[in-house]
Amino acid sequence: MTIYELGETALVRAIIRNLDIEFEDCAVIDLADAEYLVATTDMFHRVTDFPEEMSAWQIGWMTAAGTLSDIAAMGARPFGLLVSIGLPNLPPAFVESMIEGLSDCAHECGTAIIGGDTDSHQELTITGTALGRVRKDQILRRCGAQVGDLVCVTGYLGTAGAGMRALELGRAVDDPVAVKKLFEPVPRITEGIRLAESKAVTSMMDNSDGLSLSLYQLAEVNGCGFTIHADSLPVLPGLDMGLGLELALYDGGDFELLFTVAPERLVDARNACELTVIGEVTPVAGGITLDKTREIERKGYRSL
Amino acid sequence: MTIYELGETALVRAIIRNLDIEFEDCAVIDLADAEYLVATTDMFHRVTDFPEEMSAWQIGWMTAAGTLSDIAAMGARPFGLLVSIGLPNLPPAFVESMIEGLSDCAHECGTAIIGGDTDSHQELTITGTALGRVRKDQILRRCGAQVGDLVCVTGYLGTAGAGMRALELGRAVDDPVAVKKLFEPVPRITEGIRLAESKAVTSMMDNSDGLSLSLYQLAEVNGCGFTIHADSLPVLPGLDMGLGLELALYDGGDFELLFTVAPERLVDARNACELTVIGEVTPVAGGITLDKTREIERKGYRSL
Repeated sequence: MTIYELGETALVRAIIRNLDIEFEDCAVIDLADAEYLVATTDMFHRVTDFPEEMSAWQIGWMTAAGTLSDIAAMGARPFGLLVSIGLPNLPPAFVESMIEGLSDCAHECGTAIIGGDTDSHQELTITGTALGRVRKDQILRRCGAQVGDLVCVTGYLGTAGAGMRALELGRAVDDPVAVKKLFEPVPRITEGIRLAESKAVTSMMDNSDGLSLSLYQLAEVNGCGFTIHADSLPVLPGLDMGLGLELALYDGGDFELLFTVAPERLVDARNACELTVIGEVTPVAGGITLDKTREIERKGYRSL
Repeated sequence: MTIYELGETALVRAIIRNLDIEFEDCAVIDLADAEYLVATTDMFHRVTDFPEEMSAWQIGWMTAAGTLSDIAAMGARPFGLLVSIGLPNLPPAFVESMIEGLSDCAHECGTAIIGGDTDSHQELTITGTALGRVRKDQILRRCGAQVGDLVCVTGYLGTAGAGMRALELGRAVDDPVAVKKLFEPVPRITEGIRLAESKAVTSMMDNSDGLSLSLYQLAEVNGCGFTIHADSLPVLPGLDMGLGLELALYDGGDFELLFTVAPERLVDARNACELTVIGEVTPVAGGITLDKTREIERKGYRSL
C-alpha cells in the first residue's frame, strides 16, 4: 500500500494523532499572558496549485492568500510571512514579480514578508508560513458550535470553482469577477478579526476545501450535524442555479470564513462583517443535509 | 538571463534589499517587552539535499536539524517546528519514519512539531519552519564583531564534507563518525543558548554554507576582515591534513556555530560551551586570510 491509496487525509490523521496536534487552521502557541501566537504553513506547486493562465504576480499573491487565510480563520492578526521557494531556471523578472505578488498580498493583510529561503528545484514550489496573534479570550477555534447555532459564511461560495470552469471553457473574459477571485483571492483578515472581537462566534474555519468537506470537519470536531438551506447559499450572480449549487457545495479554492453564531448574537456578528446565514447546527443524528431532504455528500477539492 | 546565470545569492540580495529584510539566520520580531520572537524557514529536496544512502528517519532528522540550527545561531530557544511536505507516492512506513525523524530531532532540541501541511509532489520536498524566543538583551546577531575579537567555532569543521567523501568512496563503514555527523547532525541549541546567556559573544551565525562563505558574510555585515590560523582549525581526527583543511574551509553541511568573542571575555565563552579559537577579527583592509599569507577563497557549498 502506498500513500496515494491510503489517502492524504488518513495519513495526516495518523500523523496528527501521533504528534498530539489539534485539528485547527493554525497551530496555537501559548507564549504570553494575554495573547496566543498562531502559526500555519502551506506548500504550493506550479502544476497542481496554479492554473497555467496565472501570472507570476498572481502566483505570489495566491500563495500568500492561501497561507494568510488560515490566520484569518482563527480571528488572528498576522504579523509576518516567511517564504521558502524552490526555483527552476526562470527569468529574474518572473521571480521578482512573484515576490511582489507575495509582498503585495501580505501588505493587503497588514503584514509583510519577514524572511525566507531559496533553493533550486525542478518544479516551482513555494511554502508560505504565516504568523499571527490573537487575544486569548477572542481566539476562534473549530470547536464550540452548539445545536441551534446559525451557520454563516462571508462572501460568495463556489466562486473560485466558477472561475476554474470559466477558464476551462476558455471564457476568461466573460467572467472576469470569478477569474479574478480565483487568481487574486483576498483573505478575510479584517472580517476574522472583527468577528473575533464581536465574541458572537462559537466556531470558525476557512472553507478552502469546499463547503461540504469543511462542514464534515466541523461536524466531527463538534459532534453535531448541519442543515443547510439551498436557497440561502450565496452564489455568484449570473451563474446557472444548478451549477452554482454544485460549485458552492463541492468546489474548493475559496478563502471565505465558515462559522457558527448563537441566534441571539446574530446582530453582533452582522455588525462585525457582511455575512450570509446558510443553515443551522443540528444534533449529530440529523446528519449533514440540504434542506433536510438530501444528504450533502462528503466530497470536494483534494490536493491528493 | 535566467536566475541560474544571475545566481541565487544575487537574486536573494535583490529580493532582500527590496523587502527591507536583514541578513540574519532568522527573522527577528519584536512582540513582547523582554523577548524577541525569531523565525526561520528552510526548503529541502530529495535529490539535492539528501544523499541516496540516507534513511527516511535521517531525512526527517536532517530537515529539522537544518532548520533548528538557524534558531541556535541567534542564541534562541526553539518552541515549535512546522513542517510542509510535498509527497511523491511513497510507502506509508517511509513517511511515518520520516515524520518520526523530524519529531525526534525537534524533541532533542527541546521542542516539537506543532503543525504542518501535506501535498502531493513529484519529488519529496520538505519545508521546515522553526520558531524560537530569546531575551532582547541576549540575542546574538551577525553584526557586532570588533577588530581584535577572537573568532571561535563549536565542534569540528568539514565533518559533513568528510562524511560525503567517505560515502562517495564507498567507505561509509570506515568513517562512521563523519557519516553519522553528515546524516544526523545535532543543532547547537544548548551551546547557542549558553553563549547568549554568557554575554561574551559579539556576533554569531551558523556555518552551514561552509567556513569560507560564512566568514565572507560576517565580514560584509561587520565591515571587517579575518585572519584564520590553519593549525587551529578543528578537523576530525584521522583525516589527512591537506584534505581536512580543504573541507574545513570550503565544505558546507556542518551545523556548528561561528562566533566572535572579546579576548577578555573568552573565559566566559569557554564556561558556556566547548569551543575552538580559530583566528581574529582584523580591519577590512586585511582581507580574509589563512595565517596572513594567503587569501581564503570565496567559495563553498551552494544549493544553486
